[in-house]
Amino acid sequence: MPHRSEILGQQYIGGARSAAGTQVLHSHDASSGDALPYAFRQATGEEVDAAARAAAAAYPAYRQLAASRRADFLDAIAGELDALDEPFIALVCRETALPTARIQGERARTSGQLRLFARVLRRGDFYGARIDRALPDRQPLPRVDLRQYRIGVGPVAVFGASNFPLAFSTAGGDTAAALAAGCPVVFKAHSGHMATADRVAAAIIRAAEATGMPTGVFNMIYGGGVGEALVKHPAIQAVGFTGSLKGGRALYDMAAARPQPIPVFAEMSSINPVLVLPAAVQARGEQIAGELVASVVQGCGQFCTNPGLVLGLRSPAFDAFSTRFSALMAEQPAQTMLNAGTLASYEQGVRALHAHPGITHLAGQAQQGRQARPQLFKADVSLLLEGDPLLQEEVFGPTTVLVEVADAAELRRALEGLHGQLTATLIAEQEDLQAHGELLALLEQKVGRVLFNGYPTGVEVGEAMVHGGPYPATSDARGTSVGSLAIERFLRPVCYQNCPDALLPPALQNANPLGIDRLVDGRNQRDAL
Amino acid sequence: MPHRSEILGQQYIGGARSAAGTQVLHSHDASSGDALPYAFRQATGEEVDAAARAAAAAYPAYRQLAASRRADFLDAIAGELDALDEPFIALVCRETALPTARIQGERARTSGQLRLFARVLRRGDFYGARIDRALPDRQPLPRVDLRQYRIGVGPVAVFGASNFPLAFSTAGGDTAAALAAGCPVVFKAHSGHMATADRVAAAIIRAAEATGMPTGVFNMIYGGGVGEALVKHPAIQAVGFTGSLKGGRALYDMAAARPQPIPVFAEMSSINPVLVLPAAVQARGEQIAGELVASVVQGCGQFCTNPGLVLGLRSPAFDAFSTRFSALMAEQPAQTMLNAGTLASYEQGVRALHAHPGITHLAGQAQQGRQARPQLFKADVSLLLEGDPLLQEEVFGPTTVLVEVADAAELRRALEGLHGQLTATLIAEQEDLQAHGELLALLEQKVGRVLFNGYPTGVEVGEAMVHGGPYPATSDARGTSVGSLAIERFLRPVCYQNCPDALLPPALQNANPLGIDRLVDGRNQRDAL
Repeated sequence: MPHRSEILGQQYIGGARSAAGTQVLHSHDASSGDALPYAFRQATGEEVDAAARAAAAAYPAYRQLAASRRADFLDAIAGELDALDEPFIALVCRETALPTARIQGERARTSGQLRLFARVLRRGDFYGARIDRALPDRQPLPRVDLRQYRIGVGPVAVFGASNFPLAFSTAGGDTAAALAAGCPVVFKAHSGHMATADRVAAAIIRAAEATGMPTGVFNMIYGGGVGEALVKHPAIQAVGFTGSLKGGRALYDMAAARPQPIPVFAEMSSINPVLVLPAAVQARGEQIAGELVASVVQGCGQFCTNPGLVLGLRSPAFDAFSTRFSALMAEQPAQTMLNAGTLASYEQGVRALHAHPGITHLAGQAQQGRQARPQLFKADVSLLLEGDPLLQEEVFGPTTVLVEVADAAELRRALEGLHGQLTATLIAEQEDLQAHGELLALLEQKVGRVLFNGYPTGVEVGEAMVHGGPYPATSDARGTSVGSLAIERFLRPVCYQNCPDALLPPALQNANPLGIDRLVDGRNQRDAL
Repeated sequence: MPHRSEILGQQYIGGARSAAGTQVLHSHDASSGDALPYAFRQATGEEVDAAARAAAAAYPAYRQLAASRRADFLDAIAGELDALDEPFIALVCRETALPTARIQGERARTSGQLRLFARVLRRGDFYGARIDRALPDRQPLPRVDLRQYRIGVGPVAVFGASNFPLAFSTAGGDTAAALAAGCPVVFKAHSGHMATADRVAAAIIRAAEATGMPTGVFNMIYGGGVGEALVKHPAIQAVGFTGSLKGGRALYDMAAARPQPIPVFAEMSSINPVLVLPAAVQARGEQIAGELVASVVQGCGQFCTNPGLVLGLRSPAFDAFSTRFSALMAEQPAQTMLNAGTLASYEQGVRALHAHPGITHLAGQAQQGRQARPQLFKADVSLLLEGDPLLQEEVFGPTTVLVEVADAAELRRALEGLHGQLTATLIAEQEDLQAHGELLALLEQKVGRVLFNGYPTGVEVGEAMVHGGPYPATSDARGTSVGSLAIERFLRPVCYQNCPDALLPPALQNANPLGIDRLVDGRNQRDAL
């Protein structure tokens, strides 16, 4: 455990620490529920304001830094994260009850994510540079010289997730994307891992200082309810959020009601349907059952992409699969969840499934005690066909619902009733794809990612990943919160008309000093003009 | 004038006409105020629903058409527009009081805009294709194959503008961008030019039939107040709007309050500051005054980018410029506005400027009669420094406000107080840019387009144009409503994980059958894989 002196529990505002308020918050050991020996000060209204102002003050200088400088900053954060000591890993595990190997892996993913954005910045395609050269002789009117690139939208408020204390939190994907875009960040520390957040924020500040970033490029505040003042602050220009539908929607509504509305990219609720198709069930039902169980209970089911709905076509092979699936689910041990609130929410979700007359319980020990017990339910297909809200809601934890459909037509109708999702998965043999391939177009309309013969847990951080999807999976299907495309959420285009070359940003100068791809007169090229 | 039989005044729904309601609307001669001999039926609630459903029914087939097919459709609309007869041009002029040459030019711009999007579709960069190939031997975990491209978000509701009856209306930029993206459209005909809209919609339907588009790809409804039901319809997935701040904000608020919120791209209010810098005033003040007056009164000032604020630094040369500017403004003739509502709104705006104690009237005849009289006002700089709301509001029409600042520092403070704008303009000599170049970074934060030694009226339709900007210029600074980037507003990314090559969309198949640029393993290339 880190010394108390290492975790001050004060806000990070404009490169300094601040503890103006008197309300003290505590972080907890997720397994025992005991308070950890650190005290965190709830941010005051003045501190929220100061943090947003510090980000706004940093914005003009930070957004205009060469992209390579921002890349150096992101690389430096990655280096600082990788250099955090074993007590740090132990601390994260203690605050979240996640195992050591998972946290080590998540740290590598988080630093890898920062380095991916650094590469994007050096490559320069995020600028979206476009040049239409003047055509002075065009008839009936000459064409002016027009040049377009993209700049950061301004200070971004980021709300981290409980379930990824590193990768979707303080230095996680939203922070990395915003910083890459040239947007200073005000991060609201998650109440579930405030000590972790304190140490990660310190690492970011060290990286900012080492690479000469403007003070205020990264700020962090603690406290319940401080998010509202942050989202409503006029300096904030966009919001990144990962969490519940209720929480994300509340932030969305606040942002939309501002005098100046701002975009909110909230990644919220998904049940991630898995379609187990007939030939696959026939050929390898037992294997699929084992793989699927592993995906459902992995990390105590605390993943946005946890499979919450398994659909199959009625057949003896599907019966055998269901039996095997049930038997395996019944064997899965209880696990400690991220915190007491998460467990309470899981218990409530399981109770609602038990209570529904159209749903039967197939496997799992009675939920009790301090740990979550994996559960398997079976729902009548009519619940999907009639749009029963219970089946559309994510139960965050190691639970899934099996649904059997009569035939391909019923499968299609059941899928048509689904809301937006992060993922949909086809477990399929070649002949399944021939028979049911037309479902693909429907799934594409419903989700951000379609998987084939894999499981949705485990989200690769790369250029081509989409971790997004139609509402309520996210508040804006046009974004992703994982992968390099995430930077686009925080950029906006600006155009120069007849600007002298020397005053243009380097991305748009004739000589193409950055050596980037540009769309010149409608043709993609990298030449100097 | 077209025959009555050519303008039925019925809704266009799913490829047929519909007139279920009894409420009759009339279009007017903009100059005389007389009703034209056509009757339009207000859409009923059922018709609004039917139009949205028709668009939703067309979506699955339309979005999956090869992009080249959608390009053929856009080209065919352009051809149909260009082929409209002289009575059509006369009709548009009669409904809007805009001169023939302007409408002929606007038609060419509108068909050119459609053809630009057709080229974008054939080029294929709108797909944003990204491929991360599998790395089965990667340690510690293998990498899956991930491929991303972009699809249309779904049916789009479009609200056209009064001031561009062709280019920002029925077959205008928002419609073209949505159709290009693969999104069927429900267009709400503008009350100011319903007969024009009827004929343009017929042209779109002819093009859809000639190119074999699904019925329901384009729908149009008439009526006051029908927009609310349209924006709230669950089938609608995005909104494009050009008009007033009040109207755009109302649609934004409705869309945000839906069970499933949807994005609204509203282009609303901008005063388009023009900075007339000292050396330029000294060198060519008289010429600038003439050019600026022409920009202010062009088209009766009915442009989104009309210069509503002219800023200069106090000097004898600026005094001379102001005198010349006033004299020229005093000579400008009255012009007929688009419709009675626009004139009433202009009169109200002019009255508010007259009534403000910090604003003095420099030139212009007393506003009266059926035409708008150009006006020039001068405001004390304190109004900008103190954020007086009146100076932030667009007065739609041939009026502008002059503001004199003491020095460069005051100019900067005045600009800092401005809200978001579509454009800002620097009228400057080389030495002005050396002295005031640092303003550029500030202006870039405020606007979508920065112009040098030009005038903001006249928006080129190209790849590099940005017709957008921070609120209240638009509701979402991340979009543009003119130029080919406008297509991105209506696209969202979708990712395939380990998808068999034959099931992938052509844009993502190994062979790259479309021959498009793709980001493969982080490198832009066009090769087959």
